Amino acid sequence: MAQKKTSLKDIATKVGVSTALVSYVLNGKMKGRISEEVANRIKQVAKELNYHPNQIARSLKTNKTNSIGLLLADISNPFSSQIARIVENEADKMGYAVIIGSSDESVEKSEKIIEVFLNRQVDGLILSLPEKSEQIVADLKSKDIPFVLLDRYFPSVAANSVAIDNFSASESAVNHLLSNNYNNICIISYDTELVHLNERLRGATEQKEINSTVGKVRLGHIQEDVECAIDKFLNTEQSIDAIFFTSNLLTISGLKYLNKKKVIIPEDMGVIAFDKTDAFDLFYTSISYVNQPLNKLGREAVRLMHQAINDNTKREQIFLLAELIVRDSTSRK
Amino acid sequence: MAQKKTSLKDIATKVGVSTALVSYVLNGKMKGRISEEVANRIKQVAKELNYHPNQIARSLKTNKTNSIGLLLADISNPFSSQIARIVENEADKMGYAVIIGSSDESVEKSEKIIEVFLNRQVDGLILSLPEKSEQIVADLKSKDIPFVLLDRYFPSVAANSVAIDNFSASESAVNHLLSNNYNNICIISYDTELVHLNERLRGATEQKEINSTVGKVRLGHIQEDVECAIDKFLNTEQSIDAIFFTSNLLTISGLKYLNKKKVIIPEDMGVIAFDKTDAFDLFYTSISYVNQPLNKLGREAVRLMHQAINDNTKREQIFLLAELIVRDSTSRK
Repeated sequence: MAQKKTSLKDIATKVGVSTALVSYVLNGKMKGRISEEVANRIKQVAKELNYHPNQIARSLKTNKTNSIGLLLADISNPFSSQIARIVENEADKMGYAVIIGSSDESVEKSEKIIEVFLNRQVDGLILSLPEKSEQIVADLKSKDIPFVLLDRYFPSVAANSVAIDNFSASESAVNHLLSNNYNNICIISYDTELVHLNERLRGATEQKEINSTVGKVRLGHIQEDVECAIDKFLNTEQSIDAIFFTSNLLTISGLKYLNKKKVIIPEDMGVIAFDKTDAFDLFYTSISYVNQPLNKLGREAVRLMHQAINDNTKREQIFLLAELIVRDSTSRK
Repeated sequence: MAQKKTSLKDIATKVGVSTALVSYVLNGKMKGRISEEVANRIKQVAKELNYHPNQIARSLKTNKTNSIGLLLADISNPFSSQIARIVENEADKMGYAVIIGSSDESVEKSEKIIEVFLNRQVDGLILSLPEKSEQIVADLKSKDIPFVLLDRYFPSVAANSVAIDNFSASESAVNHLLSNNYNNICIISYDTELVHLNERLRGATEQKEINSTVGKVRLGHIQEDVECAIDKFLNTEQSIDAIFFTSNLLTISGLKYLNKKKVIIPEDMGVIAFDKTDAFDLFYTSISYVNQPLNKLGREAVRLMHQAINDNTKREQIFLLAELIVRDSTSRK
């Protein structure tokens, strides 16, 4: 703050008591051992002088800042912003403030943001890291820094993590298509090393009965690559009758292009998505999708982080189950 | 952090130099006056011992924490999350970390979050406050705390603020409808004291030529009240031929209901929205809308906040112009 900050001494001088007494009262100690009148006068003067207990000074004593760093892929993406909101609420309940950062799927940017968090002496970290971040995870472990991986995890490095069971979620999406008599299924997924996304692909393709085609989309080229994948399968002899998009961004790009190509859903093509978005409700046919338990993801992440801050010797890996929301886009007529 | 933190003294002992020398080197001072070899050795040991310069200790000396508090209505709402992303980027360029909070349109919650920010000694605040927050603004001013109001402002209390010119944005939306021969326009807006939202209503209704009906929607009852407003005007004798929704949330609720009622856009009804969302691209008719300059809003907010931190005697009120994006939903055939 630009102005000089009010100190305990300022309050003590104005009330005419000792600094120690002011400190005791404002920290809620010695209750019943000081007259109500003096205690109230101290509190009133503290308010008048705009006194704020200095969390910073307190931090040096307790070695805690009661703050956490939250790294997400991109806070403006609906998945990230919903998670941020839930983490913010849960963290607040436990007395932590949340400092945020977006990685933009870059390892370098992630390292830089984590360095900023650590310089600010956050008590712990909740991280959604980009691909090829194994070294970051190993470094944090070797330094004994409390952290929890959220949504993304790395099987080669054991660490606290909270994610959904992407494999079984995709499996159930594809099973749903098969049981509704869709037999030639195209899966549009990302070209990435991120394990959680590859688990979605694996869950969708490792079905015995499935006859599937896969379209791979590069991060940063979503619209272009989705269109290319759709063009390709629309022009093959094997007639695709359903598409499973493994993220909401892929779905939005795909639906836009299917509209342009005048492909009618579900008459010409069944469609199922991973994750939801408001857009699905406005599309002429309501879209079936895999619903991630975002509230539980955020709650568990904060719980594990709190646990790690207090005892960093435990490791927990949590996989939550997603549910399938069946609507009109997969109802073959 | 759970482990004991590395101090400058730990590094000095290991290298065999003075603590002062370590401090000079790690703070980038005395360049050229110390041998490269010693300097490199100090940096290497600092890395090995996992040394992080203690921003907290530094804060007590400089009286700055290089952090800002960002209060938004709800970080999971697309408008808020996009703004958060831009503020995060701009603040990072200036060396500020961003601590976030969501007010949920509650004055009490806003006060509580601001108190948390201040206890953490943030250097400044960027605030999107709920209605009836004039007292919060007056208090911050009387305490000489650097802050900037974002999106929402209070004419009765002069303060740094960045918002768009909501009046002229709405005026141009309605003028566009009039010039496309829509003559009986319904405006669906919020029932609120928030000035920026009422400016949208005023800009839409204070046109001389306009023949308009207004539907008012309570925050927290959006879907229900939008449906009620639409039902009301569909059942009047005066036939409404266009709707102007003054937010993207109102638009999404409205389009869902118009679909249900089988009202065809733009044949039966013209539609124009305030703000955009992905959903508009997936609707069968692309929706015309008022586009807020979010990048510029965020950039200007951080610039003003930085200015206020360094000199809190100036006051700037910035109103940015929005642009009209005309698409198919307002093209009468």
